[in-house]
Amino acid sequence: MTMDALSRLLNPVSIALVGASPDAGKLAGRPLAYLKKYGYRGRIYPVNPKHKEIDGVPCYATAQDLPEGIDLALILLPAKGVADALEQCASRGVASAISIAGGFAEAGETAEQARLSDICRRTGIRLVGPNCVGLLRPAFGVTATFSSELKNSMPRPGKVALLTQSGALGNSLLQSFNDLDIGLAYWVSTGNEADIGLLELVEHSLADDNVELIALYVEGLKQGERLKGLARRARAAGKAIAVLRSGKSQLGRAAAVSHTGKLAGAWKVWRDIAAQAGLITVDNLDQLVDVAIAFDRYGFPTRSSAGLGVLTVSGGLGVLISDAAAEHDLLLPAFSAATQSRLREVLPAQMTVANPVDTALFTDEKGYAHCAETVLHDASIETLLLVLTSLAHDYKALLPWLEKLSRDALAIGKRLALSYLSSSDQLTPADRRQLMRAGALVLPTAERVVAALGRRQSAARVLPAADCSLSNDVASAVSSSSADFLRRAHVPLVPEGVFTERAAALDFALAQGYPVVLKVVSPAIAHKSEAGGVALNLRDAQALGDAWDTMRRSVAAYAPDAAIAGYSVQPMLCGGFELIVGCSIDPELGRVLMVGAGGIWAELLDDVRFVGLPASIEEITLALGSLRIAPILSGARGQAALDVAAAASAIHRLAQRFLRDTWVREIDVNPLLVRPLGKGVVALDVLVVPSVPPKEQ
Amino acid sequence: MTMDALSRLLNPVSIALVGASPDAGKLAGRPLAYLKKYGYRGRIYPVNPKHKEIDGVPCYATAQDLPEGIDLALILLPAKGVADALEQCASRGVASAISIAGGFAEAGETAEQARLSDICRRTGIRLVGPNCVGLLRPAFGVTATFSSELKNSMPRPGKVALLTQSGALGNSLLQSFNDLDIGLAYWVSTGNEADIGLLELVEHSLADDNVELIALYVEGLKQGERLKGLARRARAAGKAIAVLRSGKSQLGRAAAVSHTGKLAGAWKVWRDIAAQAGLITVDNLDQLVDVAIAFDRYGFPTRSSAGLGVLTVSGGLGVLISDAAAEHDLLLPAFSAATQSRLREVLPAQMTVANPVDTALFTDEKGYAHCAETVLHDASIETLLLVLTSLAHDYKALLPWLEKLSRDALAIGKRLALSYLSSSDQLTPADRRQLMRAGALVLPTAERVVAALGRRQSAARVLPAADCSLSNDVASAVSSSSADFLRRAHVPLVPEGVFTERAAALDFALAQGYPVVLKVVSPAIAHKSEAGGVALNLRDAQALGDAWDTMRRSVAAYAPDAAIAGYSVQPMLCGGFELIVGCSIDPELGRVLMVGAGGIWAELLDDVRFVGLPASIEEITLALGSLRIAPILSGARGQAALDVAAAASAIHRLAQRFLRDTWVREIDVNPLLVRPLGKGVVALDVLVVPSVPPKEQ
Repeated sequence: MTMDALSRLLNPVSIALVGASPDAGKLAGRPLAYLKKYGYRGRIYPVNPKHKEIDGVPCYATAQDLPEGIDLALILLPAKGVADALEQCASRGVASAISIAGGFAEAGETAEQARLSDICRRTGIRLVGPNCVGLLRPAFGVTATFSSELKNSMPRPGKVALLTQSGALGNSLLQSFNDLDIGLAYWVSTGNEADIGLLELVEHSLADDNVELIALYVEGLKQGERLKGLARRARAAGKAIAVLRSGKSQLGRAAAVSHTGKLAGAWKVWRDIAAQAGLITVDNLDQLVDVAIAFDRYGFPTRSSAGLGVLTVSGGLGVLISDAAAEHDLLLPAFSAATQSRLREVLPAQMTVANPVDTALFTDEKGYAHCAETVLHDASIETLLLVLTSLAHDYKALLPWLEKLSRDALAIGKRLALSYLSSSDQLTPADRRQLMRAGALVLPTAERVVAALGRRQSAARVLPAADCSLSNDVASAVSSSSADFLRRAHVPLVPEGVFTERAAALDFALAQGYPVVLKVVSPAIAHKSEAGGVALNLRDAQALGDAWDTMRRSVAAYAPDAAIAGYSVQPMLCGGFELIVGCSIDPELGRVLMVGAGGIWAELLDDVRFVGLPASIEEITLALGSLRIAPILSGARGQAALDVAAAASAIHRLAQRFLRDTWVREIDVNPLLVRPLGKGVVALDVLVVPSVPPKEQ
Repeated sequence: MTMDALSRLLNPVSIALVGASPDAGKLAGRPLAYLKKYGYRGRIYPVNPKHKEIDGVPCYATAQDLPEGIDLALILLPAKGVADALEQCASRGVASAISIAGGFAEAGETAEQARLSDICRRTGIRLVGPNCVGLLRPAFGVTATFSSELKNSMPRPGKVALLTQSGALGNSLLQSFNDLDIGLAYWVSTGNEADIGLLELVEHSLADDNVELIALYVEGLKQGERLKGLARRARAAGKAIAVLRSGKSQLGRAAAVSHTGKLAGAWKVWRDIAAQAGLITVDNLDQLVDVAIAFDRYGFPTRSSAGLGVLTVSGGLGVLISDAAAEHDLLLPAFSAATQSRLREVLPAQMTVANPVDTALFTDEKGYAHCAETVLHDASIETLLLVLTSLAHDYKALLPWLEKLSRDALAIGKRLALSYLSSSDQLTPADRRQLMRAGALVLPTAERVVAALGRRQSAARVLPAADCSLSNDVASAVSSSSADFLRRAHVPLVPEGVFTERAAALDFALAQGYPVVLKVVSPAIAHKSEAGGVALNLRDAQALGDAWDTMRRSVAAYAPDAAIAGYSVQPMLCGGFELIVGCSIDPELGRVLMVGAGGIWAELLDDVRFVGLPASIEEITLALGSLRIAPILSGARGQAALDVAAAASAIHRLAQRFLRDTWVREIDVNPLLVRPLGKGVVALDVLVVPSVPPKEQ
């Protein structure tokens, strides 16, 4: 065998059914009935000590009795029998298995589940589940599942891979695939993921030429840091990944030490990283199905394809469609002059001929066809959307023409989409199926068409260059000092000296260079300025000396009883803006970088972006540019532009350091002062949180 | 007659059909056919010179021949005949009319439309349209419309008033009302609104006891400043207003002089003012219909009602439902201990009994009923949502029980809602109708149920006290000076003197009081600090004098050739935060107030809120509190709290001034410095834009 276990799982030529029942009414009886019903052509090996044969197929007493080298064992036994059966399968060289039984980690039985993981690790057998609904591969009639939906029918083979962490929602999606005639490459219900996780299946799908869209229902990822790299590989391979992520309202409660950790909130991290990786994100099951339909009908988008032409039966609806197109970044191109004049031939003088064009309720059917064909042939239009209504259109009369229009569109590399004016005004399921088979996209509302097309089109958007690898140099020596961490990342920290003697302050200032800032250091004085305890822009020794004397008098007058720790001298850094830069470990998505408005603005504005690590300088630059305060960095209101390139580079070094220094759990550099162009950055404060007490250097 | 014209329009006991046709296939023939079909019991007067009678009803040659005092004339003539017919109707004392003809303002024929407006103004006849589909009042069989939907059926009478600025979308909504069995109080398609506008009909609806929800489709409002007051009156009357506003992508392009005007963008104004007024806003037709269903089935919400209990067939869907509930601010209460233990009686040990509760696919039907009834009777639950799936439930078997459950729920003041696991898995229309008639809310997905209930519930949320009136004192004397404007609003402006002589500067500072700030004034010096051109916190004459000398030297050294206008002296204001406060006239919503983060943050953060004027101090305080920078105002990170009360009061005075000084088009106070608690506010800069050149005082 040269195929790996996952390929054998998804393309089995032999399936054992451990615990198969002859009663097709029982869960354990369904898979065999389905395999027969849907014409599976591989070998089937039922295992059940109570039967010699089931439905004409010879039956084995135990998994130990199976012939060597079976591709897939579907274990239909309840929880208590699963581990032994899995062990037996492994001993017979079975490549992969699925366990449907509940009663493992989801019921608190973590030890029992760990046993399954151990067997997989030890023997090399690969496992889907437990607590799952199984696997479906329509092209080969592989129905290794008890899904009730298969009682009705099975989706036709196609290019959408469906991977779900909920069996019931997977089943519901399957029902929609059936009903809406969406082609399925395979469906895997991953259950408790004792061994094979969702992302491993995503990775496997990337190498599968049959797959164009990977549709995911996600409740929680293991090794989520792989997501970004996988998403980018999908793009490179001309495949898209669409994700419905549940649990938005439950995320973001992680306890954390650093400011970064507190700001994180897994939902924001998820949102940012999904967007940067180019995932198609959706908010509900309908949207996931709509994206699947769009890919099923129209395939992976090309970069240039985007122009939507719309025929509505209401100016009002045209405006609503324009609103939706703007929201989903979908182009409604202006019609060419030729198109406009051809439309004018049939439209009354008071109707405008702009896109979307309102053909009114009262244009005759010949005129309607004239309009539709005219718009379809406009060079800037790739997809023609017709909004139908029984109030204006005789569906029966239109149907043959619509079917022809869809086929004609395909012939010239274009597409037809259909929706209705009212949700209560639909084509019959049979009519709809006929049109879908002719390549048309049919959805209940125009807004859903626009959203689905917009989401599909987003898969062709150009992503910034990424740096998804980390050179494996030797991990650096461990140090507990935050300042050391910055030094190793080559990020300067502002020098500061606190003095009680005037002469020492003057020496320090001379060494650091003028101008400097002088501040009183006293926990008792909250408002330093009011106390005369801040002197800025001291340009020489004379000025510093004078300020020292003045400040001592002024502070003494303002707060005679305050304990004074000393007076701080720092180089004066004119201009610039304070960022916050943080690194932390997201429980799901792994190591992430946060950049945002820092200093006092950090908590107030919540103006931050997360970036999955490793990240390229280009990705970091893009994240900085997407902040609300970005105009400040590039020089707002006539101010000087700041050194964004230096900032991105310094942040990149910090992130690389964070990846290498695996003893670090969280970092905050806040503020990181970005200085005017050419002057670089300087950290004003830093906090490094170790995950374990580090050894001293 | 004591009834006003609008009441007669909506409740006509006599209807003239001017231009009626005997051919029910024609638009002009439909209304009479509909009136007969739906049993209108008032008097009907067809007008058509070509016929003696139509369908047995005696016909008049012209409107001039009509008897006196008819309630409503439906003018079915094309554009060119409308004005004369309207004039004739008015001369016979007809109270109201509807014109369906196109070819007026929408086709560029504004003069023709102005003629209709003039006739109304002159004679007192009231007009709906032109270019509309008409009016429908199911309770009295008033079908003054050619709506094609009435060929099929008419919505049953109910409590939803539907007012639409698009005839086609109105027709489509009517279709949904029919299909989903939503009760309709009346529908008016307002067309070009030559006379009667949408808001006048809203106002009329407020006095109508039959109406609980006013559902609007809006493309553009005239006198939109009335919206806020109407919305508040609706609340007071126990009615809700739901609005679908189209044109989001087209709004916000208004040219404006002031910063406020530029930030405005009508969409943001609309969004803020709709929220403050307590309107229910929706994004598409489906959502508008869903809200209508929720009100139709459940009525206006009480404040305490909100608890939703959910039975799902999938833990995954439960999480998605929780997400949706959080988004729509809908409560999913925890079950009582008694409820939990009753659920435990039938649910397997590994299933949790939290809300939403996953009853799994495999609970028997008796167990399912036990769970449903248990949750329904939990004291914290008002609405029980069941998610059905054909995979687990036998709809035929469940149906009688569901109907009984809905009626039982109503009997104890509770409600039943139903949705499906999969969109392809619905009840038959007949079954659905049967359940709806039993009081159940049935929508395709659980998320739509949650959204509809959440939007309904929002109508019971408490609004801040409003000040919707303006005392009609004499408009104040007009002045062109921005500073005068502030003075009349009793908002202090920071004093500033610019001097070239040291002695004059010292005199000014003495008069204003120390400490002061000294700054160089020179367009040639962009970075004053770098030039040594800023001296803060000068506490006495000695300090100011020294700083004057030092600064002159420093500036001369830094920029020897720069032209110096002088040196500015201002009182030093320590602490505080800069707001922007603006007043402008929105093209649709009238006079609005904007408050937000000011100074350099104004453009960068776009952290602003709009408030419709007049506004109460409480509303202004609420708007300030909803800004992202609100924590700064209330004292973030150990800083002093700022004088928000003084700010709200000053902003209120500015807004009142703006309402009175009708010669003012836009005001920007930017920055308005909010000082520490007890120190009030002070304007640092102000711009007042007159709409007409004001006379000098």
